[in-house]
Amino acid sequence: MLSIRPATEQDAALLETLIRELAEYERLLDSVVMTEADLRRDGFGTRPRFRAFIAEWEGQPAGYSLFFEVYSTFEGNAGLFLEDLFVRPQFRGKGIGKALLAHLARIARDEGYPRVNWEVLDWNQPAIDFYTALGGKFLDQWRSVRLTDEALRRLAEQAK
Amino acid sequence: MLSIRPATEQDAALLETLIRELAEYERLLDSVVMTEADLRRDGFGTRPRFRAFIAEWEGQPAGYSLFFEVYSTFEGNAGLFLEDLFVRPQFRGKGIGKALLAHLARIARDEGYPRVNWEVLDWNQPAIDFYTALGGKFLDQWRSVRLTDEALRRLAEQAK
Repeated sequence: MLSIRPATEQDAALLETLIRELAEYERLLDSVVMTEADLRRDGFGTRPRFRAFIAEWEGQPAGYSLFFEVYSTFEGNAGLFLEDLFVRPQFRGKGIGKALLAHLARIARDEGYPRVNWEVLDWNQPAIDFYTALGGKFLDQWRSVRLTDEALRRLAEQAK
Repeated sequence: MLSIRPATEQDAALLETLIRELAEYERLLDSVVMTEADLRRDGFGTRPRFRAFIAEWEGQPAGYSLFFEVYSTFEGNAGLFLEDLFVRPQFRGKGIGKALLAHLARIARDEGYPRVNWEVLDWNQPAIDFYTALGGKFLDQWRSVRLTDEALRRLAEQAK
C-alpha cells in the first residue's frame, strides 16, 4: 500500500538520506555538500524555501518529491519547479514515481499553478520515456548556465 | 551615463514593454500572455514573486534584469535564478548587460546566495560567448521538461 504525505521537520534526516541516494543514482554524489541541518533550516524553519512529500510503501520510506515556486515573465504567473523526484530502486515498478508526480500535479491545480517544470539528465532514458508518456514537453533549445565561486565574486566586484 | 535601480510598481508598464521586446528578440512573442496587471500583482503586491532592476542610459530605459530565489538540495542552499536579462538593441555595446549581471552578482554576494543560474537559447551565440567569458558553466547534460494544460490536468486527476 502506498501513502504520500508532506515531509515535516522530523523527516530532515530521511530527506538527507534520500537526496544522497538520488545523487548517487545521478552520478553526482561528489557535488553534494548539503547537510541535514541545511534541510531543517531551509525546509522547515521560519522561511521555508521548498516543500517535499515522502512516499511510503507498506510503511517503508520509498521515495520523495521536493519542489518550490518559480516565475515566468512570458506567462505572467508562477509555476512549480520539481527539484527532485526519486524512488528507491527496490520500490520501483509500483507506480510510486507517477503517484508522486500526480500528487504534485494536484497541488499545482488546487493552488493555481498552471505548470510544473523540472530537469532530467540526458542519459536517463527510462525517466525521459516516462515524462514523455505523461505528456511532458522537452525545452531543448534552452541551455542552463551557472555562475559560482570565483567567477561570481569577480563579477560582483565590478558592480558600480 | 548608466544607472541601475530597483524596479517599482510604477515600472510595471515599462517592464511589460521590455519583456515583450525580449520575447520578440527570442522569437517567442507568440508565447507571451503576460499583462501589466500580472506584473504589478506578482512583482509589487503583498507577495512579491520576483525582483527586477531597470538600467537607464542617460535617463532612458535601456534594459532590465528580473530574478527570484531557487533551491538546490545537492548544495543545501538557495541561489538566484535570472529569469530575464535584456538590453534594448540601440543601447548595446555599452556594457549595460555586464553591468546588470554584475549588479546581480553583488546582490548574490551581499545576501549570501552562492550561485546565479539562468538559461540561454542555443542559437544566441553572442550571449553564449558573453556568459562563457564571464566564467559561466554550461550544464548541458540536463534537459528541461514542462507539464501544462491538459497533460497536467489529466495527471492531477490520477492523484489518490
